[in-house]
Amino acid sequence: MEPQFIRFDEVAPFLLAEGVSGRPLFGEGAMLNLIEFEPGATVPAHAHEHEQLGIVLRGVQRLVVAGVEHALGPMDGYVLPGGVEHSATCGPEGATVLDVFRPVREDYRERWESTRPG
Amino acid sequence: MEPQFIRFDEVAPFLLAEGVSGRPLFGEGAMLNLIEFEPGATVPAHAHEHEQLGIVLRGVQRLVVAGVEHALGPMDGYVLPGGVEHSATCGPEGATVLDVFRPVREDYRERWESTRPG
Repeated sequence: MEPQFIRFDEVAPFLLAEGVSGRPLFGEGAMLNLIEFEPGATVPAHAHEHEQLGIVLRGVQRLVVAGVEHALGPMDGYVLPGGVEHSATCGPEGATVLDVFRPVREDYRERWESTRPG
Repeated sequence: MEPQFIRFDEVAPFLLAEGVSGRPLFGEGAMLNLIEFEPGATVPAHAHEHEQLGIVLRGVQRLVVAGVEHALGPMDGYVLPGGVEHSATCGPEGATVLDVFRPVREDYRERWESTRPG
């Protein structure tokens, strides 16, 4: 794999949930996903085998992990081991979050590639 | 490994280079490192086997990768495959960058643990 340099605002977004979009950057064994929550949007409870790390960049993301809510603001970070059920909501101003997945989420790559123009 | 929730501004920083500090968050197979460059600071050319991904959050980071300079501003992202030589400098206003490493950089963990108070 060659080095990559991108502007996230030029990356086509794909839909993660109603009112939640992601802009991915795929490495070899890990990926970034820059997520934009519209005000009040929710990612329903789900789980995946991928390890997930992240940081809130704007607004508030409430992560419910194993039944416990964690309200995270700008420059708050988290690690979710693979297999842990979690959901996410945001506050009235929406939120911007950077998620990291290891390994690459091939389901995201497929969804992203199927929504790109051309 | 249990889920982790942290405030990066409460994480003890460790020195990456003169004028460059990092605040790490260690997952199982990947880690985040929130980096603060003082104005004009430089990370000298180096290489590591770890895959590195990142995003600039504030200011400008100039990454020189395989001899080519890439000037990256806020919301610009990158992937550096393992083994590629790179250096980093920033502009006169400094920079804030989030780096991701896969796997965890155990050298960073050792340096961070050795600089923590207590």
